[in-house]
Amino acid sequence: MASYDETTENRTIIRIDRDGRKEENDLIVKEHALTITLSDGEFVKDRRFVTMFCSPSDIEQLGIGFLLSEDIISSIDDIDDMSISDDSSEIKFLLSSSANLAENLMSKRDITSGCSRNINPYEFLKDLKLDELSSNIIVSAESIIQLSNEFQSMSTLYKSTGGTHASALCDDKGILIFKEDIGRHNAIDKIFGECLLKGINLDDKMILSSGRISSEILLKVAKRRIPIIISRSAPTSMALKFADQAGITVVGFARGVRMNVYSYGYRIG
Amino acid sequence: MASYDETTENRTIIRIDRDGRKEENDLIVKEHALTITLSDGEFVKDRRFVTMFCSPSDIEQLGIGFLLSEDIISSIDDIDDMSISDDSSEIKFLLSSSANLAENLMSKRDITSGCSRNINPYEFLKDLKLDELSSNIIVSAESIIQLSNEFQSMSTLYKSTGGTHASALCDDKGILIFKEDIGRHNAIDKIFGECLLKGINLDDKMILSSGRISSEILLKVAKRRIPIIISRSAPTSMALKFADQAGITVVGFARGVRMNVYSYGYRIG
Repeated sequence: MASYDETTENRTIIRIDRDGRKEENDLIVKEHALTITLSDGEFVKDRRFVTMFCSPSDIEQLGIGFLLSEDIISSIDDIDDMSISDDSSEIKFLLSSSANLAENLMSKRDITSGCSRNINPYEFLKDLKLDELSSNIIVSAESIIQLSNEFQSMSTLYKSTGGTHASALCDDKGILIFKEDIGRHNAIDKIFGECLLKGINLDDKMILSSGRISSEILLKVAKRRIPIIISRSAPTSMALKFADQAGITVVGFARGVRMNVYSYGYRIG
Repeated sequence: MASYDETTENRTIIRIDRDGRKEENDLIVKEHALTITLSDGEFVKDRRFVTMFCSPSDIEQLGIGFLLSEDIISSIDDIDDMSISDDSSEIKFLLSSSANLAENLMSKRDITSGCSRNINPYEFLKDLKLDELSSNIIVSAESIIQLSNEFQSMSTLYKSTGGTHASALCDDKGILIFKEDIGRHNAIDKIFGECLLKGINLDDKMILSSGRISSEILLKVAKRRIPIIISRSAPTSMALKFADQAGITVVGFARGVRMNVYSYGYRIG
């Protein structure tokens, strides 16, 4: 079996700078096509659910996290079996009857989720019941600064290629899980998948992300009842509207010793 | 009619830095839900094609560019009529019979495009016929440096909010069209839409983008036969594989006086 856990490849490029033009070896971030196939052992057989582009690491966590974010599963018990093809291009899930796969796929026919593309936020929100999160978690600005620095130093794939996003699950003591991927959504789904596999609660933790906080990212985090999201980048207006409704603390531009707190600032002590 | 061309909104935030914690007014980038509805005056009536999240500017260009990128139209003659709702939440297209809408939608049923999510690149490639582009365009590294600086100075929405991507159509003399959007794909689609409206050729120009060059971005540009793509950020391995096949020059990390040339370097003089 070929090793598909490498997330970079080498390429000879031409580097142009003040000193001129020279051929050099460079590290390129790998982009990998992963197809998720679903069966329920009864009505649905090997149905291609999605083909996504990702970094070829944590395939299992990504698959599980994606199914969770897309409401195909709600717990690890919804998965009876799982297998990854030798070349890591396909992950097959056999879901248990508790997942109601056939019914679920029927009801979803018209809604697919993408990055700023294929989702109707209002249909989505109807089902979400964004009742305000009332988590009592408080975290100091100092802890966030420390987490943000730790996060930066762990982003090795980004440092070597400049082509990835990172996401981390944290508590106020440190980073618990750290994932990188070419996609903002994938990096977070990998975290969710690992938490489901390991039985880690999400609703008393924080999510750190290198990427912008769009409405889709906010909703993804809100659905997992995570009370605080911290980003090195900016939130959008719609993300903040949903954060207001959902009771989520949004911290943006967390870089060095500075940060902006956009909502529910009482949780940042 | 309300004015929806503002792309930012105000919000009171808490800014924390070395000097402590203070309430301040901040500019947040607006995220807007836009639904594209399609009719052909015969078989298809007001069918919701997509709801996408975007910056509420250049709605017309975005709608047209999106339909072009998704192969729903191939020329401006495929559009008989177009109307935008008062609140800019919906753009309706009446397509001409030349667009073969009903047939086209049937054949697409299984393929939707998103950001690293919902596309099967191999199915996509089958149709693309990536024969090598043989454009003779040559551009100097100095021109690219100049274009990149001009691009930076035009990115005003990014400068005020930190939450957008930008894209530009250029020739070696300067920037011809410049667009910003919360989404990388949208910014490029806005350019394509404007070119279709104005009858501007794409196949002798360059595309500049602030965002990473993923396979989907590369294919979007390849389909328009644009020979050079320049980014301030990194390309992925799959994007470069497709660029090799399609004969496209990829320039990454174009910042200040430096850049990396990843493919078909002979076009960078």
